[in-house]
Amino acid sequence: MFELAIKTEARVQSLDITPRIEQKIQEIGLKEGAVLIFSPHSTAAVTINENADPNVQKDLLEALERLVPRTPSYSHAEGNADAHIKTSLIGPSVLVPVEAGRLKLGPWQGVLFLEFDGPRARKLWVRPMLPWE
Amino acid sequence: MFELAIKTEARVQSLDITPRIEQKIQEIGLKEGAVLIFSPHSTAAVTINENADPNVQKDLLEALERLVPRTPSYSHAEGNADAHIKTSLIGPSVLVPVEAGRLKLGPWQGVLFLEFDGPRARKLWVRPMLPWE
Amino acid sequence: MFELAIKTEARVQSLDITPRIEQKIQEIGLKEGAVLIFSPHSTAAVTINENADPNVQKDLLEALERLVPRTPSYSHAEGNADAHIKTSLIGPSVLVPVEAGRLKLGPWQGVLFLEFDGPRARKLWVRPMLPWE
Repeated sequence: MFELAIKTEARVQSLDITPRIEQKIQEIGLKEGAVLIFSPHSTAAVTINENADPNVQKDLLEALERLVPRTPSYSHAEGNADAHIKTSLIGPSVLVPVEAGRLKLGPWQGVLFLEFDGPRARKLWVRPMLPWE
Repeated sequence: MFELAIKTEARVQSLDITPRIEQKIQEIGLKEGAVLIFSPHSTAAVTINENADPNVQKDLLEALERLVPRTPSYSHAEGNADAHIKTSLIGPSVLVPVEAGRLKLGPWQGVLFLEFDGPRARKLWVRPMLPWE
Repeated sequence: MFELAIKTEARVQSLDITPRIEQKIQEIGLKEGAVLIFSPHSTAAVTINENADPNVQKDLLEALERLVPRTPSYSHAEGNADAHIKTSLIGPSVLVPVEAGRLKLGPWQGVLFLEFDGPRARKLWVRPMLPWE
């Protein structure tokens, strides 16, 4: 299992981490299987979506803000209840197939780290997994 | 890893793909483990839900439309920003246990492919994974 | 694969199941890999979020109720359409890394079982998975 350090620059931000995962897979030499990309945080999530037009990520973050606004009164008193809720709506991890030593993604897909309570120093854990055969 | 071709017939549609996954598992002979069912698209998702009453899938698609309407103005200018957002809310994949050569699902569960920007020719990647013992 | 019995006490409830998963991992002796924690139900979900302040779980359940109210008219006539929709928004399972014989979670993370149509007798299936090396 390896760890990636991530530095976010705003309260809410989407970062395309695909190249960094790709590089690690090549470094460790995983050829066939899958990688679990897991965020150990409760106010940041991981998803897969288009990484060609950056407006897709902007629309996604804005839609989450409309669905779970920061301002309504929540019971959790740290001012980041919305970030916790967004994290469970998106999820803390993705599992991506690996084939021939590369992440097997669709042509428009990238792996995105979604910060909901930054800016912060974050990390990701990446666990290569064995295929059946 | 194998691929399933999927043909959707409407902009928004839910397709029960459980029998097709089951058949493939039997063909390849996987007995114990899990299967990663992964959509390589950024405007379609995979989920697990009841497949007995088709109204459950209808309600799910309509609720997603209420949460993320197609019409509000988005930055992504291709008219399918809502489809991208729904995809991240649901997620691109599921991991399902396999036991005794069959998908291990609850009695009311089915694996559903959710189209959000069809009709289109789609595909799914299915990666069998090894259990611990 | 092992099974955990869960008893919920309300229509909507969040239960921290981390200690029970931890105990099972130690009993079976899994040292390195990951565990798939899978809910075989279509009206209950599994997520990962903060388990320190219980208000985080309260806020999450209340936000889901705002997003998918119980009362609007749905096509599914059993009175639990909202529970099905919430289940797909959160997802039926999580995959958590295991390292040195323990769940590898962030310092604030716990594994939460979310009941959306209780009280009921529920169960979880836990499938240990092999890492690559």
